[in-house]
Amino acid sequence: MTSADDDASAPPRGAVRRRVARWRDGSVDEHADVVAEEVPVAIVCNGEPFAVMMATPADLEDFALGFALSEGIVAAPGELREIRATTQVDGVELRLTIPPERAAALARRARSLEGRSGCGVCGSRDVEDLLRVPPRVASEPLLTAAALDAALAALSAHQSLAAATGATHAAAWADEAGAIRLVREDVGRHNALDKLIGALRQGDFDTGAGFALVTSRASYEIAMKAASAGIAILAAISAPTALAIALANSTGLTLIGFARPGGCAVYTHATRYAGARGD
Amino acid sequence: MTSADDDASAPPRGAVRRRVARWRDGSVDEHADVVAEEVPVAIVCNGEPFAVMMATPADLEDFALGFALSEGIVAAPGELREIRATTQVDGVELRLTIPPERAAALARRARSLEGRSGCGVCGSRDVEDLLRVPPRVASEPLLTAAALDAALAALSAHQSLAAATGATHAAAWADEAGAIRLVREDVGRHNALDKLIGALRQGDFDTGAGFALVTSRASYEIAMKAASAGIAILAAISAPTALAIALANSTGLTLIGFARPGGCAVYTHATRYAGARGD
Repeated sequence: MTSADDDASAPPRGAVRRRVARWRDGSVDEHADVVAEEVPVAIVCNGEPFAVMMATPADLEDFALGFALSEGIVAAPGELREIRATTQVDGVELRLTIPPERAAALARRARSLEGRSGCGVCGSRDVEDLLRVPPRVASEPLLTAAALDAALAALSAHQSLAAATGATHAAAWADEAGAIRLVREDVGRHNALDKLIGALRQGDFDTGAGFALVTSRASYEIAMKAASAGIAILAAISAPTALAIALANSTGLTLIGFARPGGCAVYTHATRYAGARGD
Repeated sequence: MTSADDDASAPPRGAVRRRVARWRDGSVDEHADVVAEEVPVAIVCNGEPFAVMMATPADLEDFALGFALSEGIVAAPGELREIRATTQVDGVELRLTIPPERAAALARRARSLEGRSGCGVCGSRDVEDLLRVPPRVASEPLLTAAALDAALAALSAHQSLAAATGATHAAAWADEAGAIRLVREDVGRHNALDKLIGALRQGDFDTGAGFALVTSRASYEIAMKAASAGIAILAAISAPTALAIALANSTGLTLIGFARPGGCAVYTHATRYAGARGD
């Protein structure tokens, strides 16, 4: 959302201008609004189509790596040998090159799921596959109330796409002092977290030594992606679901909801949160 | 989110109680919080698994019909001959009985997509399938600023699950005067809209004569589901994406974003919105 006199400036990456009639108290102002891009991103592994995701076409290399790790397409960043993004008339194609044995495993997974389609949880076509438990979180960082407050206060300044469009979620990585180290944005909250996870691994961050902060709710998939990436503390600005709490409980993830200046709700593994002032 | 003294009351349908440590300004209150349920809902058509969705286990018959219509599993409500929901240890199974020719079409669709998995847009494994344009919206209801304000003012009183958990989106149907006629809630915004569409068809509502109001952003999928259901006006409380605007443009849907008391932004087919006071 911009005012009419911003029309000449370039929109941020991942956004475009579209005409809008903006009504306020009975009068209208017509101008070019800045809106978030959302495009089909087709993920192709060693030439085989794997999935199409609706995503914001920015930070696609981070997305490719984070998605490949979250989905178990590769087990380590080094296995993702090449990422080639090509913009097409109707979206983006992300061609990943992975080791032949990973591609074979993917093909077996696809064959065993033949005739099914997946939705809601990427790559999972049946409940058993979906409700897997990731390895137990091993690290023990400590999050203080002051650090969470600092990260919350600093976050919005890093959300350029959200500021311009109002349409994107952010996933951020903060160190134990609450300093924001990385932020990724996307129209999809799962994509934002996959982009963050990809960027963390590209940058060789220690996911055991800080915390992740997401502007969304904490659903099962969000908690699953965080735990699978070895993140020990996940703070969400909005509510968790019961299944996210169950997953966090069983995998050792500290799940925090309603993270707001001055307070939060700790649902699981509360020993990593030092909420008393002066802790 | 409830206070500790609410512990004895039953949570609303679709919610459960979980222990939480709620921190505020350095002190903690431990109690049982009301959190939204999120369970895998496996959709099985004539015995063949079709998809697994993460959803709130409430209004599942509405969900089954709305999902089946949105996904093109059936073309009309009468084709959904039976819906059988069974609660299992790890989720819900929704067994749909559809005409044999529809099941055969579904099997052909699945075979042609063999080896691919879908995500982000249900049932779409490639971009071409995904970017289909639904039939052009045929009806011409008029939405006044006063009606939109009335619906916005009334909506929250209908969001019992959101009030209890803070974790759910709502999709509502309002008549041309702005009176809320139906509301459905879900942890997933797409599911909330599918439930609404199912309920509209079960209740034999005329989708050409009122408008839909969603508490979320308007992504491509939200606009697509609305247009496919014959809805002429979709108002979202938050921002639209560029692709949702493009879809709304091409299909004749009036797409409204940032619907707030006293104002909104009309992105497409603005002739259905009468924003001037006294219109």
